[in-house]
Formats: sequence, C-alpha cells, structure tokens
Amino acid sequence: MALLYKADPVRGEQWQALFAEHAPDIEWRAWPDIGDPADIDYLAAWQAPDDLAAVLPNLKVLFALSAGVDQLDLSRIPPSLPVVRLLDPGITRGMCEYASFAVLCLHRDMLRYRQQQIARCWQAHMLQPAHTRRVGVMGLGAQAQQILATLQPLGFALKGWARSRHQIAGVDCFAGDAQLSAFLSQCDILLCVLPLTEQTQGILDRDVFRQLPHGAALINMGRGGHLVESDLLQALDSGQLSGAVLDVLQEEPAPADHPFWAHPKILLTPHIAAMTQPQTAFAVLLENIRRFQRGEPMAGQIDRQQGY
Amino acid sequence: MALLYKADPVRGEQWQALFAEHAPDIEWRAWPDIGDPADIDYLAAWQAPDDLAAVLPNLKVLFALSAGVDQLDLSRIPPSLPVVRLLDPGITRGMCEYASFAVLCLHRDMLRYRQQQIARCWQAHMLQPAHTRRVGVMGLGAQAQQILATLQPLGFALKGWARSRHQIAGVDCFAGDAQLSAFLSQCDILLCVLPLTEQTQGILDRDVFRQLPHGAALINMGRGGHLVESDLLQALDSGQLSGAVLDVLQEEPAPADHPFWAHPKILLTPHIAAMTQPQTAFAVLLENIRRFQRGEPMAGQIDRQQGY
Repeated sequence: MALLYKADPVRGEQWQALFAEHAPDIEWRAWPDIGDPADIDYLAAWQAPDDLAAVLPNLKVLFALSAGVDQLDLSRIPPSLPVVRLLDPGITRGMCEYASFAVLCLHRDMLRYRQQQIARCWQAHMLQPAHTRRVGVMGLGAQAQQILATLQPLGFALKGWARSRHQIAGVDCFAGDAQLSAFLSQCDILLCVLPLTEQTQGILDRDVFRQLPHGAALINMGRGGHLVESDLLQALDSGQLSGAVLDVLQEEPAPADHPFWAHPKILLTPHIAAMTQPQTAFAVLLENIRRFQRGEPMAGQIDRQQGY
Repeated sequence: MALLYKADPVRGEQWQALFAEHAPDIEWRAWPDIGDPADIDYLAAWQAPDDLAAVLPNLKVLFALSAGVDQLDLSRIPPSLPVVRLLDPGITRGMCEYASFAVLCLHRDMLRYRQQQIARCWQAHMLQPAHTRRVGVMGLGAQAQQILATLQPLGFALKGWARSRHQIAGVDCFAGDAQLSAFLSQCDILLCVLPLTEQTQGILDRDVFRQLPHGAALINMGRGGHLVESDLLQALDSGQLSGAVLDVLQEEPAPADHPFWAHPKILLTPHIAAMTQPQTAFAVLLENIRRFQRGEPMAGQIDRQQGY
C-alpha cells in the first residue's frame, strides 16, 4: 500500500516526515519516482497525471491537495474513482484572515488612503458605522460560513447567497437564480468564495455589477475564472464599483502588462489568501485514508455531478 | 443654563439637533457666538479657549470631544474645573476596526505585497499561523481591552503592557518599567494605544525598537508624540523593524516633504482610526451632564495628577 505525492517538492518533504512518523504503514512515494505503479492506492496531488487510469491502474482515491478541484479535468478521471478535496483548517483560517483584512480595507476606505499616501494628501473622510455596511458572501459552504462567523463580531450587516437554501444565524440568506438580484441589491461589499464550476464560470460580470448598489466594492477569493476582468475594469471606471480586492486572476502569475497591477482602485495579491499547510492538513488527509480503509464516508468527497 | 460647543461646525449641527430633541433644557451655543458668557455652564470642545477662567467665568465642566486630552494644556485650566474625556462607543469601535485591519495587514505581509503590486511581481510568501504571531498592546485602558477582545477570535498570541498591573483573560499582561523589556522581547507586532502624557512622550524610540524581536512591526494609534520618528526610520532602514502602520504623526497634517509618505515599509493614514460621531457620542455626553447635575461621578473624568 503506497501513497503517491504529486505537488510542491518543498512541502512534500514536510508531508513525508509526517507520514513517516504517524502512518508508517502507508509507503510514501513522490512523483516522478513512482516505483511499481501497481502499488499505488492513493494519489495526493494538485494536478493529476494525464491518462490516470493507465498510469495508476490500482488507484483507489484521488486526494486533491486544495480546497477547490477546478484545476482537475474531472471528465478525464474515471467516474468510479472517489475524488476528495482538502478541508484543511489551516486553509479556512487563512481565508478568514484574508476576508477580514479585505472587508476592513474596503469598509475603512483604505484604497483611497493608499492613493492619498502616494499623493502626499492628508485628508480624513467620514467613517461609516459597520452596522450600516452590508457585506454579502457568494457561496455558503464550510469556508464561507467560517468567514461569516469571523465578520460577525465586527458588526457588519451580513448577507449570503448560494444555489441551495441555507439558514445561518445572523445572516440574511438568499438562494438560487430567483433571489440573486435581491441579494445583489443589498451588497455594499460583495465577497466571492464560490467553487468554480460550469455554472459559476464568469459569474462576476457586468450583469452582476449593475445590480449592486452604486459604489459597491468587490472581493474575489474564489478563482480567477469567476471574474470577467474587462467587465470589472468598466465598472470601476464608470464608478459603479468603487474598488476591488483580488487574490486570484484568470491567468496566474499575472503577466506584467495586466491592467490590474497599476489600477488605483484594485488591491491585487498573488493567490495568498490561504495555503495548504502540511502541519494542519496532514491530520485531515490521514483521517480520510483511515475512513476509506474502514469503509466510511470521507470528508470533502466531490459530487461528480455538481463538480464540487 | 447653556452649553458652548467649540469644534468642527459640520458635526456641530448634528450635535445641536440632538440636544434640541433630547435635552431642550440645555441651551445650545456655538463658538464664537457665545452670547452672555455668564450663562455658560458646560464647554464641549476639542480645544479650550485661551484664558478659560476669564472667558467663561461660571464654567462648571469642560467636556473634551475626544478620547484623549493631550491637545489641552491642562496647566492653563483651573485645577478645580472637572475635565472629562469622551468615552464614545463609536470611537472604540473605530479603534477596534483599525487595529484589526492594521494587525492583519502586517500579519499577512500586506506592505510587502503592496510593493510587489507596484513592481508587478506575482510571488507568494510563506504564511505564518496566527497562534505563533505575538501581538503586544501598549496601554490597557478600556479601548485597549476592546481591541484585545476583537483580536482574540483571530487566534493571535496576545500580550499587554501598562504602567499598572492588569488581569485580562487570554492576555499575557506585563506591568511597569520593570517588565517592559520582557514584554517587548515577545512582541512581533507592537500596537500603541497609550494616552500621551509626560511619561509616555517619545516612548516609541530606538531603545524600545532594539528590545523587540528582529523584524517586528509597529502600529501607532496613540498620538504622534509617542513616536520618535527619526528612530523609526533608522529601525526600518536597518531591518530591526519590518514595517509600520501609523495613523498619527508629530505634525498633523503631515508636511508634503515628510519622509513617511513615500516609505515602502510605512502605511500612513490621516488620523482616521476613529472619529467622534455625534450619533453615538451624544448619549454619553448627555448622561455625564445629568450625572453632574445629580452630583454623581462622571464617566471619563481626568485625574489631573496623571493627566488622563
């Protein structure tokens, strides 16, 4: 029984040490030194190899080393193979920190003050109380709910939207296409943590921006594929949107001539909201392997129909 | 019985409307139209007029419209006149928001990412878990305690220092000169919310910076007078400090040639962490007037010996 690791080699060494100490019964192999492919039961990977079924004929589970699995081409992965995403509490904490930072940054006008610092301009602007600032989260999965719980003590008026109906204490929840407009009309700050699927590809477009209150702001912590970048530029230039904090882009790393780099109303970070940390992720991955061995359901298994 | 208002005229109109509605027995007057000076019982002001005793011979209480009173020259105010600072819950909320923003900004390397955005550089840096990040707050008054309570759910390792001994759940507290070094040696992020007094003037100096861990960061939300600005520049240039978020300066507004404006390791905001909001401050001020009328102690009365 062996686990094949196919991701960043530096963190691979941390993973390997954790397996050696806590799960010596699971043999560790690191791509591309896979040894006898027939030994490999588990693949822990960011990207799967092409032609997975042929390369690893006895594979039992594909563990994605990420919270989302949009980087995998699920159509090329055997339908019967369980695919499991990583519900790393370290990732969730990172997302909560970034979300709090980004919401406070926009709530407290920090993009404007960033430009004033560049212009050497000392001028205060009126401060809006948090309870009148409506923050809407798109996506209401486990991460989104933790983000909402982190924002709650700061006093914001919280809204949430997802495809399916949710009930979350202290959050005004909206569901499905039918309620999307009503949700958007109440979001001073719109924060996207949706999974990237065929349905959500390009969801942050001019239609959505038009339905937000004039001067609203955007945070994208989902995937670059959620955002129609040219529509955001237009919405910022027209004043419909006042600012954006973006951690993800269509093309990463962003090319040097990307118009977002120098945009005064955009704060851009290089996909750092959260990173998988072997220290916190190992226990989650190992527990899923043990559950699989006992024939129990694994946490984070993908619904192959929904794609997340 | 009249109250004389001497501060920002725009917010003055809001104050006036609140008094007219909720305390019609207290006549409102706005500087410089003071009418008969003998009528004035209460002065609500940012700055007191020179020669206060002569200008307002029957003054009973001076209400500062600020959380700190260092802008007042207490030596020129009659020793028997009660001076009361404003414990506005809106100010406290503003301070908590700014502190959370500033701590997250430094914790998540956002000054470095700000520079990377300018340089069009897409590069991620390792993320440090919050529980290993030690945040130390200088000053443990009511505001500081609310700030610590706001930081607590984010998971930081919290420290606090004040002149006198405090006990705060979840915060490692240090007291007095004897424990200052021990406190400083454990602060990855040092946040100053001290009152400005003779004792704390210039407290953030090279001696303090030298005792912080190498690469620590500074947040000053107290007063500009706490910071020796040239010492901060040296500490940033030597690498002893990695960054600073400053909301206050020795000279405000900052002159256009101030070296902090363009410093890559400084985030500078124009004294906006918190602003007195008539909506939240009115109830506090009126309650103090009523307490005074009933002969009860007022909230926020200054100890004229300590100066805060």
